[in-house]
Amino acid sequence: MAGNQFGSLFSVTTFGESHGEAIGAIVDGCPAGLPLSDADIQHDLDRRRPGQSSVTTPRKEADTIHVLSGVFNGKTTGAPIGLVIYNENQQSKDYSHLESVFRPGHADYTYTQKYKHRDHRGGGRSSGRETAARVAAGAIAKQWLRQHGIQLQAYTIAVGPFTVTDMDLSVVETNAIRCPNTQQAAEIQAYIEALKAAGDSVGGIVQLRITGMPVGIGEPCFDKLDAVLGHAILSIGTIKGVEFGDGFATARLLGSESNDPLHSDSAGIHTTSNHAGGIVGGLSNGEAIVVNAAVKAPSSIQKNQDTVTRDGKNTTLSVTGRHDPCICPRVVPVVEAMAAIALMDLMLIHSGYPHRE
Amino acid sequence: MAGNQFGSLFSVTTFGESHGEAIGAIVDGCPAGLPLSDADIQHDLDRRRPGQSSVTTPRKEADTIHVLSGVFNGKTTGAPIGLVIYNENQQSKDYSHLESVFRPGHADYTYTQKYKHRDHRGGGRSSGRETAARVAAGAIAKQWLRQHGIQLQAYTIAVGPFTVTDMDLSVVETNAIRCPNTQQAAEIQAYIEALKAAGDSVGGIVQLRITGMPVGIGEPCFDKLDAVLGHAILSIGTIKGVEFGDGFATARLLGSESNDPLHSDSAGIHTTSNHAGGIVGGLSNGEAIVVNAAVKAPSSIQKNQDTVTRDGKNTTLSVTGRHDPCICPRVVPVVEAMAAIALMDLMLIHSGYPHRE
Amino acid sequence: MAGNQFGSLFSVTTFGESHGEAIGAIVDGCPAGLPLSDADIQHDLDRRRPGQSSVTTPRKEADTIHVLSGVFNGKTTGAPIGLVIYNENQQSKDYSHLESVFRPGHADYTYTQKYKHRDHRGGGRSSGRETAARVAAGAIAKQWLRQHGIQLQAYTIAVGPFTVTDMDLSVVETNAIRCPNTQQAAEIQAYIEALKAAGDSVGGIVQLRITGMPVGIGEPCFDKLDAVLGHAILSIGTIKGVEFGDGFATARLLGSESNDPLHSDSAGIHTTSNHAGGIVGGLSNGEAIVVNAAVKAPSSIQKNQDTVTRDGKNTTLSVTGRHDPCICPRVVPVVEAMAAIALMDLMLIHSGYPHRE
Amino acid sequence: MAGNQFGSLFSVTTFGESHGEAIGAIVDGCPAGLPLSDADIQHDLDRRRPGQSSVTTPRKEADTIHVLSGVFNGKTTGAPIGLVIYNENQQSKDYSHLESVFRPGHADYTYTQKYKHRDHRGGGRSSGRETAARVAAGAIAKQWLRQHGIQLQAYTIAVGPFTVTDMDLSVVETNAIRCPNTQQAAEIQAYIEALKAAGDSVGGIVQLRITGMPVGIGEPCFDKLDAVLGHAILSIGTIKGVEFGDGFATARLLGSESNDPLHSDSAGIHTTSNHAGGIVGGLSNGEAIVVNAAVKAPSSIQKNQDTVTRDGKNTTLSVTGRHDPCICPRVVPVVEAMAAIALMDLMLIHSGYPHRE
Repeated sequence: MAGNQFGSLFSVTTFGESHGEAIGAIVDGCPAGLPLSDADIQHDLDRRRPGQSSVTTPRKEADTIHVLSGVFNGKTTGAPIGLVIYNENQQSKDYSHLESVFRPGHADYTYTQKYKHRDHRGGGRSSGRETAARVAAGAIAKQWLRQHGIQLQAYTIAVGPFTVTDMDLSVVETNAIRCPNTQQAAEIQAYIEALKAAGDSVGGIVQLRITGMPVGIGEPCFDKLDAVLGHAILSIGTIKGVEFGDGFATARLLGSESNDPLHSDSAGIHTTSNHAGGIVGGLSNGEAIVVNAAVKAPSSIQKNQDTVTRDGKNTTLSVTGRHDPCICPRVVPVVEAMAAIALMDLMLIHSGYPHRE
Repeated sequence: MAGNQFGSLFSVTTFGESHGEAIGAIVDGCPAGLPLSDADIQHDLDRRRPGQSSVTTPRKEADTIHVLSGVFNGKTTGAPIGLVIYNENQQSKDYSHLESVFRPGHADYTYTQKYKHRDHRGGGRSSGRETAARVAAGAIAKQWLRQHGIQLQAYTIAVGPFTVTDMDLSVVETNAIRCPNTQQAAEIQAYIEALKAAGDSVGGIVQLRITGMPVGIGEPCFDKLDAVLGHAILSIGTIKGVEFGDGFATARLLGSESNDPLHSDSAGIHTTSNHAGGIVGGLSNGEAIVVNAAVKAPSSIQKNQDTVTRDGKNTTLSVTGRHDPCICPRVVPVVEAMAAIALMDLMLIHSGYPHRE
Repeated sequence: MAGNQFGSLFSVTTFGESHGEAIGAIVDGCPAGLPLSDADIQHDLDRRRPGQSSVTTPRKEADTIHVLSGVFNGKTTGAPIGLVIYNENQQSKDYSHLESVFRPGHADYTYTQKYKHRDHRGGGRSSGRETAARVAAGAIAKQWLRQHGIQLQAYTIAVGPFTVTDMDLSVVETNAIRCPNTQQAAEIQAYIEALKAAGDSVGGIVQLRITGMPVGIGEPCFDKLDAVLGHAILSIGTIKGVEFGDGFATARLLGSESNDPLHSDSAGIHTTSNHAGGIVGGLSNGEAIVVNAAVKAPSSIQKNQDTVTRDGKNTTLSVTGRHDPCICPRVVPVVEAMAAIALMDLMLIHSGYPHRE
Repeated sequence: MAGNQFGSLFSVTTFGESHGEAIGAIVDGCPAGLPLSDADIQHDLDRRRPGQSSVTTPRKEADTIHVLSGVFNGKTTGAPIGLVIYNENQQSKDYSHLESVFRPGHADYTYTQKYKHRDHRGGGRSSGRETAARVAAGAIAKQWLRQHGIQLQAYTIAVGPFTVTDMDLSVVETNAIRCPNTQQAAEIQAYIEALKAAGDSVGGIVQLRITGMPVGIGEPCFDKLDAVLGHAILSIGTIKGVEFGDGFATARLLGSESNDPLHSDSAGIHTTSNHAGGIVGGLSNGEAIVVNAAVKAPSSIQKNQDTVTRDGKNTTLSVTGRHDPCICPRVVPVVEAMAAIALMDLMLIHSGYPHRE
C-alpha cells in the first residue's frame, strides 16, 4: 500500500535508494520447479546497466545479482526469492550541492512535501536506479512466461523527431538504441550524441510486443489485461502515456474500421486484423499484444533552468554530472520486466479459477 | 482478485449483468460524517443514462439509485454503503439471435474462452452497463473530494476527424457531446447523427481535468498517481490509451522543453508551465492534473462484419438494435467516477501515513 | 481495508445494519459452472434465523435471500454474485432509549469513539445481524467445497457448566442446541431456558470439524491454514478464542505425546493420531481439521449493570427486549460459513500456483 | 498471497530458508521521521537468538542485522526498509540423513505434497528460523508504537505442568524462561533441563500484554482487532491456539459475569473489570489487551517415533542434533513482533480514515 509492491499471486516488493547500501526485491509466489540461474537474471540487468553505450550515462555500476533464497539445486522451491544488488558507486559527495534546491522535472519537490524530509543523494528512492530491482524480478517472470510459450520484446520506435519504419525485430539488440531498424538506429544515435554534447536530452516511444498469448487472460471489470499492463508500465517513472493496439489513433476511426473481424481456420479462431492490440473486453484474444509507451526526456540537463530552493527562494540550476541524454534504450528492459510481472500475475490468477462448463 | 473491486482503503466492489435483476456496488471505507443524499448520486447516473440525446442509444433505463446502508440521518456512518440499481429493461428476447455467434469487437469470444460459458444477454457482465455501478460509487468519491476542495471535470475533446479548440469548460454540460465548444459540439453532433443513420459508429478522446490538488498524493514506486489513475481509466471497457500532460507529444520534446520550471511567489511554489500534467515523480505537484483517454468506436454496428459462430463456423453479422453511435458523451461521467475513486483511495492512503520531519 | 471484506481470490464483501433497509454481500471469484440455487443459500440462513427455538430470540425475520447476479440457468457464471436480504423488522422505535447510553459488553462505546458518531438502532453495523450476509456467502463456498469432497460441520460442545461427551454428529441438527448428544442437549436447553427467565445469558464452545481435506492447503508463512481459519472465526463478534487440535491442552504435553506419528498403508500416508487437528506446518495434512471456538455470553441481559451515558455520566442499565440467552446454536452456521469462505479462498490460491517437480 | 507478507498499510514481506545464504524482510509503509538505529533491531534479535541459555538450542547464530535502505541520518525516510541477516551456520551436511524421511510434527510431509519438492536442509522455509526476519521487522513496529505510548510485553505463563502465579512483569527478562516469577522460573528451568537430558520436549503458554492503547483500533467486521492479532500470532508455526481476555473461560461464564461495567471518572471512561481483554466489538476499548497463545512442544525429539520415508515406507526416526527442548522463551519476542506488526498496521489504517461528526 505504500507503493513498493506490485502483483498479488505473483508479487514483487522492492527496496533501495540510488545511494544507499543496496537495492533489491522479494519475488513471492513463483511456482516451484522453475529452472532459474543467476545468469537468467544478470542478462537483463546488463541490458539496463549504465555505461553500455555512447548514449547512456557513463556512470559505473556492475549491478551484480545475488539470489539469497528461494532457489535450490537450480530450481525455484516455491519459497520467496530474495534478490540483492549492492550499490558500488554510492559516494554522495557529488550531490551535496543539490541538498538545498529542487531540480525541475525531478521528484525533489513532491517527495519533500510528501515525506517532510529529503534524501538528496541522487534522488534517493525516486531515482530510476530502483528499476534495476524491477528488471531482476521481471527476469524471473520472463523465464516463467517463456516456459509457457510467451515472449516479450520491447524496442524503441521513436526518438524526438524520428519515427522508426520498416521494423526488423531481430536487429533490436544489435544497436545502442534498441531500435528495430539498423540504419535509423545510427541516425538516432548521432542525433542523441549531438544533444548530449549540447547538454540537453530527448524523449521517445518504446513499443512492447507480447506473442504466444493464450486466450482469456485478464480479470474484468477492474483488472482488465490492458488496465493492469497500463498500471505496470505507467509505474515506470519516465512514462507519460500508454496505448494498446491502435491506441489514440482508434479515436479517429469508425467502428467498421476498428473492429477486428473474427475468422476460423485450421489454426483455430483468430482475428484478421489487430487494431485491438490483442486485448478485447479486457481479456487477451490470442493475437499479439502491442503496447506503446511515451518516454519523457531525462530531467537532468546542463541547460540553465528556473527553479526554487528548499527554503522557497527563486534561483537557476544547471544539473552537472553524468546523465542519460535519452533513456529509451535502458527503459526497454524495464518495460519488458513490468509487463512480464503483471502478465505472470494475471496468468496465475486465471489458473486460480477452475472455471468449467 | 477476480477483478470486480477497485481500491484499498477506499474500495468499490461491483456486481451485475446488463440483463440480470440488478447491478450495484458496495462502497467500503468512506469516512463517517460525509453529507450524502440520493440526489448526489442520481445526478451522475442521469449523466450516464441511455436515451439522453440524439447521439445516445434510445434504450430506456431510469437507473434509479437505492442506498441500502451506510448512511444515517443524511451522513455516512463509516459502515459500507450498499448501492443497488434495478434493471428495468431486462427482457432477453432481443438477444437470442446472438446466443451462437461472437460479435466482432465485443468480449463474446474472449469471455466464452475464459469462463467456459456465456451469458449472451447483451454482453452479460461484459456490457458497458456495469459502469452505472461505477458512476454511483464514483459520485460518493466526488462528494468527498469536493469537500476537500478537489474538482474533477471530464469532457469530449475529439471525435473522429474533429479536434476541439478554444475550450470553455463552462459549456460542457449544455450540449449533447459534452464538448467545451458549443459551435464544434453542434458540428460533431450532426456528424454522429449521420454516422448513426449509416449504421456505423465512431471513436474520440475524452479529457479529464482535476483541480484543487494538494501536493504529494500517490505512492511510489508502483502506485504512482499516474499509474493508479491510468489503471482506473483503462479499466473502462472502451478506453484504448491514456496519457498525462503532454503525453505522447512529450516523446518528441527535449528535456529543456518538457521540464516545468519551478517558481515561488506569494501563492507558494508552483510550476510556470504544466507539461507534466500535474504529476512529477508519480506524485501530484499541486498543478491541474490533465489526462487524455482514447475512446474506441462502439463495437455494435449495423454494417456487415465477418465473424465466427460459437461452434467455429465462419459467418457474417450485422448487429441490429439500439446502440450508441459514439460513446464519448456517456463515458465522460465514467471517467470522472473512476478517477475520483482512484484519487480518493490514494488520498486516504496518504493520510494513513503520518510522516514527520 | 475498512474491514468489510474477507478473502482474496474468493472474496466476500458485506454491507448492512441491523435496522437499515437491507443487508447483503458481493461474492467475487466463485468459479463459473457451480450449480447454485436460492435454496442452497436459504437452507443455512434458516439455521441462523432468529425465532427458531425456545433458546433463541423470538424476533421475527424471514431472512429471504435474493440473488441479483452471477447465476444464469442454475449455474454460476464467474461474475460476482450479488446477494441481498431485506430487513423486515427494522422499526427503530424500540431503541430510542439506548440513544444516549453505552450498553456494557456491546460495541456502543468503542464504535462511537472510532467513528465519532453512533447508529444506536440495535447496534447498527456492530449488530450480530451482519452475520446473515456471511452465512449467505458461506453457503456458496460450502456448495463449492462439497463438490470438491469437503464437508464442514459445526456444533455446540459446551455451554456454561456443561461439557458434551459421547458425541454423535448425526443428531446435531435434530435439537435446538445443535449438540451432538441428544440427552445433554435437553439438559442444556432446560438450563438456558431457566437463565433466560432470570434475565441472564451464558457462553459456550462451538467445535468445527472439516473432513475430506486434500494435503497442502494453506500459504506459509503468514497465511497458514490455522492462521487464516483463526482470523475468519475470530472475526465473528462473539468469539473470544480459537484452538486447533489439542489447542491449549497441547501446552501441557511433551513432544513425544503431541507429535502425530506418520503411517503408510493402502489408504496412503496418514497420521495415527490427530493432536495437530489436521494442520502441520500451517498446511492441511489430510486428517480432519478440528477447531474449537470460545463463545461469549450475549451482552444484552436484563440484569442491572453499571455503565456510562454518552455524555459521560455514570448510570445503570437493564437491557430489555428480545435477546438470545445463548448464541451457540445460531453461531454454528456462522462458524461453518466463515471457515468455508477462508478455506475456499486458500484452495483457489493453491490452485493458482502450478508447482511442479 | 503466497503467504510471505503480512499487513497492508504497514507491511512486512520476508524471505529466506534456515540453510540458505540469508533471511530478511522488506518493511514497507513505515512513516518517515521515526528515529531508528541498528541497535533497536538487534536488541530483539538477541532475545530470539539460539544459544542464549541452557534451555535453548546451543546452535550458533549471531543474527546480525543489516539495514540496507529506508533509513537516512538516523531516521526512517518513508521508503521501504530492506533488512538482511546472513546465515552463518548454513552447512547442510547435518541434514543429509533427513533427505528421505518425513519428521513427525514437522512440515516435511505437507510441504513436499504442496510444492512437489523438498528442501530438506533443516526444514528450509518451514524452519522456525524465518521468525528472525519477523522479529527484526517487528522491532521497527515496536519502536513506532512506543513513540505513540504503546508498550507490548510477552512472557511465559505456563510450561507443561507448571502454571505461573503471582506475576511480576519486571523480572521477565532476568530469567531464562522469560517468566514473571523468579522462583517458578527456576523450577521450570530445572524441569526443562531434565526433559532435554531425556531427549524430549514440552509445550507451554505465552501471554502478551499491550498497554497504552487508544480507543477504537480495529476494522469491523472482518478485521476486528482480535481477528487480526489472532491471525498474526497463529501464523507463528508453533502456536496452536489464541484467546483474548478470559478466552475459553468466558465460555463458562454468565453474561452478568463476563460483561465489563463501564465507569466514568476523572481519568475518563473505562471498564471496572477486563474480562474482554481490552477488545469490545472488535475494537480496542483502552484497557490492557491480554492474549494467551498455546505453544506446542518442539517436534524435534530424540525419542524413537514411527514415521514414513519419502517413498512411502514405514520406518522409525530419532531426530538427533541441537534442538530447543521448550520454545516458549524464544517465542516471546516473536509474539511481540507479530502483534506489533498487526497493531501498527491497524493504527495506520485507522489514521487513514478521517472520520468526523
